[in-house]
Amino acid sequence: MSGHLAVVGLGPGDERYVTPEADAALASAQALYGYGPYLDRVPLRAGQSRHPSDNREERGRAAAALRHAAEGARVAVVSGGDPGVFAMAAAVCEAIECGPDSWRALDVAIIPGITAMLAVAARIGAPLGHDFCALSLSDNLKPWELVERRLDAAASAGLVIALYNPVSRTRPWQLRRAIELVRRHLPAATPVIFGRSVGRPDEQVQVVALDIADTADADMATLVIVGSGVTRVIHRPGRSPLVYTPRAAAEVSA
Amino acid sequence: MSGHLAVVGLGPGDERYVTPEADAALASAQALYGYGPYLDRVPLRAGQSRHPSDNREERGRAAAALRHAAEGARVAVVSGGDPGVFAMAAAVCEAIECGPDSWRALDVAIIPGITAMLAVAARIGAPLGHDFCALSLSDNLKPWELVERRLDAAASAGLVIALYNPVSRTRPWQLRRAIELVRRHLPAATPVIFGRSVGRPDEQVQVVALDIADTADADMATLVIVGSGVTRVIHRPGRSPLVYTPRAAAEVSA
Repeated sequence: MSGHLAVVGLGPGDERYVTPEADAALASAQALYGYGPYLDRVPLRAGQSRHPSDNREERGRAAAALRHAAEGARVAVVSGGDPGVFAMAAAVCEAIECGPDSWRALDVAIIPGITAMLAVAARIGAPLGHDFCALSLSDNLKPWELVERRLDAAASAGLVIALYNPVSRTRPWQLRRAIELVRRHLPAATPVIFGRSVGRPDEQVQVVALDIADTADADMATLVIVGSGVTRVIHRPGRSPLVYTPRAAAEVSA
Repeated sequence: MSGHLAVVGLGPGDERYVTPEADAALASAQALYGYGPYLDRVPLRAGQSRHPSDNREERGRAAAALRHAAEGARVAVVSGGDPGVFAMAAAVCEAIECGPDSWRALDVAIIPGITAMLAVAARIGAPLGHDFCALSLSDNLKPWELVERRLDAAASAGLVIALYNPVSRTRPWQLRRAIELVRRHLPAATPVIFGRSVGRPDEQVQVVALDIADTADADMATLVIVGSGVTRVIHRPGRSPLVYTPRAAAEVSA
């Protein structure tokens, strides 16, 4: 069995985030699988086949890539951001667990990438500078009650919260509800960051206070970061503000 | 004011994780600041000055770099992993907030990198494949009671937990106590991952069940990931196991 499957994180936006490790994995692949717009970000190379699929076809895409690798090919599944954070690596593992024994014999490599929350945080300062969590607001694969329980737990324990998948066409109200919920735990002035299309030409990063945060500013390409009670905003004349969460929790909250 | 300060994430381990954006920021700097071993990972370039400092000198290092940039230089502060995750970006923001007005006028850029939990997760599968948190076990800058409250909140809400700074010479018992604490919430078989020196020649990644996890396996270079109640282990004949957290919470925990 010589098949090889790499699950490759492209990072957000353009090639400036693609690590040398990811680049090498893409260059050595015979076949590329992925959501169409992610595949479009990979340079064309002679002799490579491309197998685009739709956004919501993660399990089917993983299975197709594994079948191809099990035939002996070098296959890469591309993922935006980091493949291990709400992305293709878990889908590939699920498929392996449920699939034929031959898939367990494959050489599988996960290649990490810059996940969206790190890129958005970097654009605005260091909002993830102390304890934080990453939650998906999608209730396609978990009950909404569980999302609420996790938001409550995180906000009341003082964790900064990065929200992935805040909005989609079929999930229009979840972000509004999440913001209402964290308002119960956090000061009105807590900074909320909306980072949209970070690393791409249409990038937009906004900071607003929690009490006036308008969820209409978010769409499918947005990553939202809700500060904790100690997250701070530094205003800078003629420059965008810096938002950061101090390393010393007690000192600042006292 | 032409000064420029970049806070640059090198990722873990070697150059395969250094993004093109980080490489460009390092190449264009006139002066490099950082913890000595991180500076040693940056290629030598003619005309650049180097200013190593000790591990625990974050605030002083940030202030020195800002002073240098305020004189009009292009300065880079290097950080392992991602500078925004328990690293230099928050220290730089703190120094700016408390420093002279001229520091607020500087052009400041944070360059994200692959943070340790992403690299460790990638080596073993996709343990961060669903909702998770990142907690620092250091009680140098926050009370230990707050660490315990956050561990309780995270484990009882079903979040996977990445533990940064699990052990140091002056903090020998905190990881053991943390593991004891999460055992109250999680099944005995919950996978715990010890990732040491990932990306370096002496890399070691181990998976053990929570009930027998031995904290003597961790040191300052270790990142620990504690699974949630639904995190799974796929055994593979002749290969290391894959550990992943499924995307569907309810389906698996039911």
